[in-house]
This record gives sequence, C-alpha cells and structure tokens, in this order.
Amino acid sequence: MQALGYYNGTYGPLDQMTIPMLDRVCYFGDGVYDAAYSRNYKIFTLKEHVDRFFRSAAMLDIKLGQTKEELGDILNSMLRKMDCGECFVYWQATRGTATRGHTYPDPAQRANLWIMLRPVNVLPLERKLKLITVEDTRYLHCNIKTLNLLVNCMAAEQAKRAGADEAVFHRSGRVTEGTSKNCHIIKDGVFITAPLDHLILAGVARAHLLKACAALGIPAEERPFTLEEMFAADEVLVSSAGCFGLAAEYIDDKPVGGKAPQLLARLHGYLWDEFIQETA
Amino acid sequence: MQALGYYNGTYGPLDQMTIPMLDRVCYFGDGVYDAAYSRNYKIFTLKEHVDRFFRSAAMLDIKLGQTKEELGDILNSMLRKMDCGECFVYWQATRGTATRGHTYPDPAQRANLWIMLRPVNVLPLERKLKLITVEDTRYLHCNIKTLNLLVNCMAAEQAKRAGADEAVFHRSGRVTEGTSKNCHIIKDGVFITAPLDHLILAGVARAHLLKACAALGIPAEERPFTLEEMFAADEVLVSSAGCFGLAAEYIDDKPVGGKAPQLLARLHGYLWDEFIQETA
Repeated sequence: MQALGYYNGTYGPLDQMTIPMLDRVCYFGDGVYDAAYSRNYKIFTLKEHVDRFFRSAAMLDIKLGQTKEELGDILNSMLRKMDCGECFVYWQATRGTATRGHTYPDPAQRANLWIMLRPVNVLPLERKLKLITVEDTRYLHCNIKTLNLLVNCMAAEQAKRAGADEAVFHRSGRVTEGTSKNCHIIKDGVFITAPLDHLILAGVARAHLLKACAALGIPAEERPFTLEEMFAADEVLVSSAGCFGLAAEYIDDKPVGGKAPQLLARLHGYLWDEFIQETA
Repeated sequence: MQALGYYNGTYGPLDQMTIPMLDRVCYFGDGVYDAAYSRNYKIFTLKEHVDRFFRSAAMLDIKLGQTKEELGDILNSMLRKMDCGECFVYWQATRGTATRGHTYPDPAQRANLWIMLRPVNVLPLERKLKLITVEDTRYLHCNIKTLNLLVNCMAAEQAKRAGADEAVFHRSGRVTEGTSKNCHIIKDGVFITAPLDHLILAGVARAHLLKACAALGIPAEERPFTLEEMFAADEVLVSSAGCFGLAAEYIDDKPVGGKAPQLLARLHGYLWDEFIQETA
C-alpha cells in the first residue's frame, strides 16, 4: 500500500478515504495529533509520542476512545499492512461529530481516531538547512499539539517561497521554535534550547538531544535565547521526529554555524545509533 | 430538508455528507468561512458577507473557484431547496486536497467549497445575556475569518460551563471581542467599539451598529476599551450575524449595563427594521 488511511476502524487507500462533513475538525480544527517514523516496521519512540498525544488530548478535554496500549496496537497493525517498513506514522483525534457549534458536543462522545501512513525516510543527518526567521503570531497554546496550524503553514510557505527549508519563529526577538521543529543553538560547547512553556512544543527529538548531551557530557541549558544569539551561535539546529537534529548553514540568507562540527558529529552519532538500535 | 450540506457541487442531507480525508482542513484548519442568516428565503447582508469571505481568502492566498456572483447564486439555490426560509447559511473554502504537508499544494489548485444550511432564527433582541471574561490567547490574525477556532471553542465551552452565553476576550485588560461576536459598550450616550485591527474580526453586525449610530445621531468611537470601562458602562452589547446587538445583564456574575435602555431600544429598533425590510 502506497499510503493508507484509517478513520474510526475503517481503512483503505488514503486518497480514497472520506470522513463525515460534521467532524468538528472541519470547522474548528478541534483536535490533536502526533506522529512518528518507523524503520524495519518498528515505530521509533512510539511510547513517547503516544504519551504526548494523551497529554495533548487531556489538556483540551478530548475524550479518547482507546487506551495507550490499544492505540499502539492499532498503529502497529496498520503499519504491518504497508509494503514498506520505513513510514511516516501519523494519527490524530478530533472532538467528535456534531452539528457545528463552538461549545463541545455531548461529553460522553468519544473522539474520532484518524491514522495516516505513507512511506517516508527520516532525513539524513548530514543535510544542512536554510532557514528564515518569522515573527511568531501563533496562539499561546503551542505546548499542545493541536490541529490549529494555519500560522505554521503560512510561515512554512513563506520559507518555501524564499528557497528555505524551514521558518524559525521569534516573539519580539526571542526564538521560540520552527513551524514543525524545535530550534536549538550550540555556543562555546554548550547546548542551549528554549524552556518548556506555552510557547513551544515539548519535542520528543528535543528530549533526545538533551539525553544525548547528558550521555556525552555536553553541558545543556534550557533557557530563552534571542535571534542575536542564534546568528552568533557556533551551530544552529532544528529537530523533529523526522530529522532528529539538523544543522543550519543559512538563516535569512546569512551564513550561520559551522563552528562546532565535532560536537555536532558526536550528537549526530549518538542520535543515529539510538535510532538504528531501537529499530533493528 | 432539515439540514443540507454541499461540497464541491455535491449536496445532500448534512449528516450523511462526507469529504475527502486529505482536505487540508483536516490537518491544519487551512480555510476561511463566513455565514449569514436568511428570512423569507432572502439572505440578509449577503453581499457584505461574501465580500468579507473573499477578503479572508485573499489574505491567506486561498484561490477561490467561484466569482462573488457565482457564490451568491450557489448559496441562494441551496437555500431554495430548504423547507424553511429562516436558515443559518454557512460556507467555507479550504485550501485544496493533497498529501499532508505544511506548505501549500499546487498553486493552480482551487479551494474546496463547502456549504451548510439549517433552520435557525436570529435571536430576539430583547434577550439579555450572561457573559464571562477570558484572557485572549488567540493568534494575531483575528481579522481573518479562518477555521483555526480552537481557542474560541475552549472559551465558549468555559462560558457554557459557567452558565453564561458567551465569553469576552481581553488582552491584559483590553477588551477584544467575544468567541463569535464583537463586543461594544455605551457610556454617557456614546457607542464605543474596538478599532479594526488584527485583534478582532470586522463584524458585519458591528458595521451595521455603527451605521445605526450615524443614522440616529448617536456619537460613536472606534477605540480600544478596557475591562474596567466595560464593567462601568451604561450598556454592554455583543453582536454577530445571528444576534445584531444583544445587551448583557451579567459579566462574571456581576450585574452590568441596563442604564441606557432608551438608547438601546432606538438601536434595536433601527437594526430590526432594517432586517425586516431587507428580507421582506
């Protein structure tokens, strides 16, 4: 199967799947999602992504219809239907199906469960990225992985039109995160990343970068950093489930980073080894 | 027909309609909408709502597949299929159907057009509302009528659970608007409403309230106002396509308004007459 879709127990080729017009996602983006990558039919860091998904749902009072174990089983059973074991495994829950109205429908109604799988490989770690910076005009709930992603789309499109790979948001000069990736810097041997608050998502790859730093004896700081610090950093990294931690070589067409290649290589080595071992 | 749905030319009973799982609304809330009310099978202020819809789409670079005239014709033809001439007429455009990706799909792809109709009457103007106040944590694109409405839903639900009709947002004490209504105050004979910027939607009912003030010789100011001013106002009003301009009697369980009933009655008289005449 090239791309597979699932909705509340029904599945089929993704481009032929349909969903009810009254799913609340259609009018409000009222739902949460998460996603991970598989290799050899094994979903990397599945537990962490499922845990975060349940946290996102709980923060929005969305009642999931499955336990974590049941969700993991469904995702793995869907993955086994694919012709290829290297997939992007995406799932979301939307707040039920009901006549359009801002207030929540019957609280007994369980969320609709959606799954999409398609063959995708994680990005090679040697790839260098071009970034742009964009004022962060998003809502103040960026810690929840919701389906209100229009501003992220607008910034991603702005990056694409500028010939860049990703946009990095900032609030009046304080760097928050990318449109679908966390953002970090390395300066004088220290790994620096924005703290976990309502301005950024608690990235699973971010947590693994911090774990790698701890394992490798690299000092790490979770604190706000500015655009100025980013442009002056020894390395600038962005991370997500699909790219672990890629270095940038240009931001807003100015050369950045490239001054701590050995430290970067050690981090990359740790992250890649972990991925290969966990999905062996 | 009790409730009718339309998607890209196909229509049927709303609760049986389906849409493609890969419509971009499903993952990003990537779309814009507008809505109006009909009476006697005539859609009140249709042109103003269609004009705003086209402005919303243009601001997000969403390519509509119809002219304003064609859209109006489709909405009117759908309305004629209803058993009842008093309807909520809702439509939206979503940025095409494509494999999930933040950047926009093929720019040649036209938006998907959605329509929903169901029998609803506008609210009677004598109704008095209970409001609550909520910190405005929405994005900074509230001037665009998008489908990223999760924070609006959260606040509307908070109002419902508090036994109130609507929540009024404020940013650090500056009143912005309700979850689906603009907000205004009357003080010492002056009608005061927040200015049109990225913090509020340019409500059609708001424009008609200003028009009513001009026609009735009531001074009007478009300027920011605070929670403190709202609690001390002679009257507090909220307005939308479905309620024109209703007065509040409680905010956060404190009594408000009720001190300029004659001025309120003159505004209500003007707005109701206009509605009745235009839909005669």
